[in-house]
Amino acid sequence: MKRDWLKELYPLFYPDSIAVVGASRDEEKFGSRFLKALLTVGFPGRLYPVNPSYREVSGLKAYPNLRAIPDPVDYVIIAVPATNIMEVIADCAAKKVKAVHMFTAGFRETGLAQGREMEKTILKMAREGGFHLVGPNCIGIYSARNTMPLGAIPHLAEPGGVAILSQSGGHAEHIYDEGMARGLRFSKIVSFGNALDLGATDFLEYLEQDEDTALVGAYLEGIEDGGRFLHVLRRVSSRKPVIIWKWGKTPAGATAASSHTGALTASPAVWSAALRQGGALEVESLEELTDTLLAFQGLPKLKGQGIAMAVVAGLTDGGGGASVSAADALMAQGLAVPTFLPQTQKKLREILPPVGTILHNPLDLGGRGGDVKLLKPALALALAEPQCQALLLHMRLDGLLHYLSLATVHAIADLILEARRTGKPVVVVSTTGSREAERQEIEKKLTSAGIAVYPTLDRAARALARVTGYWKHDRRRSS
Amino acid sequence: MKRDWLKELYPLFYPDSIAVVGASRDEEKFGSRFLKALLTVGFPGRLYPVNPSYREVSGLKAYPNLRAIPDPVDYVIIAVPATNIMEVIADCAAKKVKAVHMFTAGFRETGLAQGREMEKTILKMAREGGFHLVGPNCIGIYSARNTMPLGAIPHLAEPGGVAILSQSGGHAEHIYDEGMARGLRFSKIVSFGNALDLGATDFLEYLEQDEDTALVGAYLEGIEDGGRFLHVLRRVSSRKPVIIWKWGKTPAGATAASSHTGALTASPAVWSAALRQGGALEVESLEELTDTLLAFQGLPKLKGQGIAMAVVAGLTDGGGGASVSAADALMAQGLAVPTFLPQTQKKLREILPPVGTILHNPLDLGGRGGDVKLLKPALALALAEPQCQALLLHMRLDGLLHYLSLATVHAIADLILEARRTGKPVVVVSTTGSREAERQEIEKKLTSAGIAVYPTLDRAARALARVTGYWKHDRRRSS
Repeated sequence: MKRDWLKELYPLFYPDSIAVVGASRDEEKFGSRFLKALLTVGFPGRLYPVNPSYREVSGLKAYPNLRAIPDPVDYVIIAVPATNIMEVIADCAAKKVKAVHMFTAGFRETGLAQGREMEKTILKMAREGGFHLVGPNCIGIYSARNTMPLGAIPHLAEPGGVAILSQSGGHAEHIYDEGMARGLRFSKIVSFGNALDLGATDFLEYLEQDEDTALVGAYLEGIEDGGRFLHVLRRVSSRKPVIIWKWGKTPAGATAASSHTGALTASPAVWSAALRQGGALEVESLEELTDTLLAFQGLPKLKGQGIAMAVVAGLTDGGGGASVSAADALMAQGLAVPTFLPQTQKKLREILPPVGTILHNPLDLGGRGGDVKLLKPALALALAEPQCQALLLHMRLDGLLHYLSLATVHAIADLILEARRTGKPVVVVSTTGSREAERQEIEKKLTSAGIAVYPTLDRAARALARVTGYWKHDRRRSS
Repeated sequence: MKRDWLKELYPLFYPDSIAVVGASRDEEKFGSRFLKALLTVGFPGRLYPVNPSYREVSGLKAYPNLRAIPDPVDYVIIAVPATNIMEVIADCAAKKVKAVHMFTAGFRETGLAQGREMEKTILKMAREGGFHLVGPNCIGIYSARNTMPLGAIPHLAEPGGVAILSQSGGHAEHIYDEGMARGLRFSKIVSFGNALDLGATDFLEYLEQDEDTALVGAYLEGIEDGGRFLHVLRRVSSRKPVIIWKWGKTPAGATAASSHTGALTASPAVWSAALRQGGALEVESLEELTDTLLAFQGLPKLKGQGIAMAVVAGLTDGGGGASVSAADALMAQGLAVPTFLPQTQKKLREILPPVGTILHNPLDLGGRGGDVKLLKPALALALAEPQCQALLLHMRLDGLLHYLSLATVHAIADLILEARRTGKPVVVVSTTGSREAERQEIEKKLTSAGIAVYPTLDRAARALARVTGYWKHDRRRSS
């Protein structure tokens, strides 16, 4: 019988009350930081600092141990050194808590036999106590709907459909920070560290059932239960895109990974083949993970490889390098840049001058790219092209701001937002330069409207190609 | 006999006087923009607006044509439509000017026979008139030492040893903007467009002789004189690194390139082989061009592949993902991450706690990464490793600023600047996130001290590997 993960992991993602063991008045301690973050974001349930040295922490009554708390406790964050852990776990059992997040490190990852032994004992106690564990050696659970922050980070991102699984706490934070800055909207984030009790496969099955999650990104170091993982992955990825960044692609990394976990990590090639078989999209870096998640979040099921491009990179480059290398970048990723239909080119010629522009595809407006009156119908024509599934707009703010006012560039951004109302998706490349404050202002406008913005053409092309490739593959499977 | 390019092109890079044909009171016209930029940066020579419709432009006396200017004119910027060009070229000859930059477009790049015919006539007139041409269809010459700005961009970068050749004006601007933001220091920049008179090979020979230039970056679309180009490239690249981004790597791009220029562009594979033979480093995008130039600008001749790494990415990731994937990224590029010597590890153990840190290489300070007192001796130990030629420091400002004050992060940046005094180079990876203003503040501190900063590990690793690979190759050739 299939496990009801939604019910089983409910106390992890939707606890009514949280106790933080190790919270203190020393703000540098992680226990204090976790509690502070929960208070800052406004966690709506009850909060209990646990520390025998204080009667009060952060304005809340503190308890010497979990057993002393008069009310039921759903979820416990443990942030005391490993030397004190057994007593706390015993208290969790005695208190009949429902879920435990162990931030505490110093177990199997030390490579010492003692660490592994301690883990075994803890797992046994948890099973007997009837509660699930996240960790040890991790920053735990982020739950948008339950206002639970990521570890000690004292703010919440916009809620949305992207779930993250990460074996590394640092990477979970990094994906969160970068994702939030670029407009990713998160449902759940799980940093699960040593995966003593719950691991990647369990959380993946949970996310399959979680209605808030449309899309899963994962950073994995190793999988103990390779067979079950692949079985689950195949099922989940047929319903929701799963994008995986797997550590250990170099020989040295693979050796380390192999000594760390099971057979599936023995060779990067085997891993890649398995992920492909499992229907996952494999990426090679944290940036590519974020890039790909953004593309899937922002784009519908694209039915073809054709992309219309418009280059509004600067005003001195009509007919020049930017549009040419843009087409190169797209085609290198297997996307198509179909020449606009003759009637489209004819209409473009009617509104745009012939010198200093390119009117097929990429559409390069050159010196006229700052003319909002021309840009509007030109973008509409590009978006109407039947062979093109999406519009990629290449903006270079430095190039524009040398010649145009910031207000004009805002008007261009508004046009982009408006262009999306045609129903076709728009993706933007906005390259870095010396006008970073203005760039962020414009990008913020675009990303908060749900448009995926990329810092380079190559990264945009690669992410777009992932989306078109995924849905093409999907169609093949279902036909 | 070898041409004395320094003498021959002196009037292009060091004119005493510049006339701008087409400057007007309409600020939107490029002629006006070029003149304005020259005035804004403070070009030290004489400036003459040329326009029959005005007696004065931008506070300067305007002349109806070049012949009417009473004093000699070294350099002419032509920014009038192609229809008026012949008269202006004739005036250049009559006035005996020494160099001409043709911004004017609408010649061979239109694909019409007429455009090519006009170019032939112009070239003939220039040869007979004894002056050199840059362009047409380009933004011309940037000359740091002579206070000449890039086209219409009204500011100058810090002067330095990096020269840029670009067939595209837009790309020249983009390389300049991004390079300046990231700390590239330029000697000369040439946007040469259609290369009617002077082309890539000529300018490469000039830069070989130019003492201000230590390093050349180029964006090329095609080369007419393949044999001579390769011959010159081989010679120049044995003295100064030459980094080339060549357009037309996809089949469609190659076809376009082939119809545009000569045999050498017929196939991307042939081009790549030729560039390799010529000793150039080939890059695949504008970002990689900037990345590679930064690495060569900031690093000495590295004598080996060994890199020491320190991860100060956040405070929740000791022993975790960031340092592991960092090592992966370096090794994937063929760099080495040699384990620190036992005595180094011993010394590190004396100053750093064992839990939550990794003390071999990469050095991961985990929760102690914000402790400047520990970081200082730890970095010194990493830099002292004899097998390591450089230190790559991975900072994630979001990760740090969740836990540390901006002042502490500044203190870390100061430590990095100080660490360089050991004589070994330091390269920094600083990833984007939600604290962009602070990130730029810190990065500015590092880049203005000449440290190369990269937005991702992969890009840093790739750029570093280009430098170590180049000098290894170089040593092989000379041994």
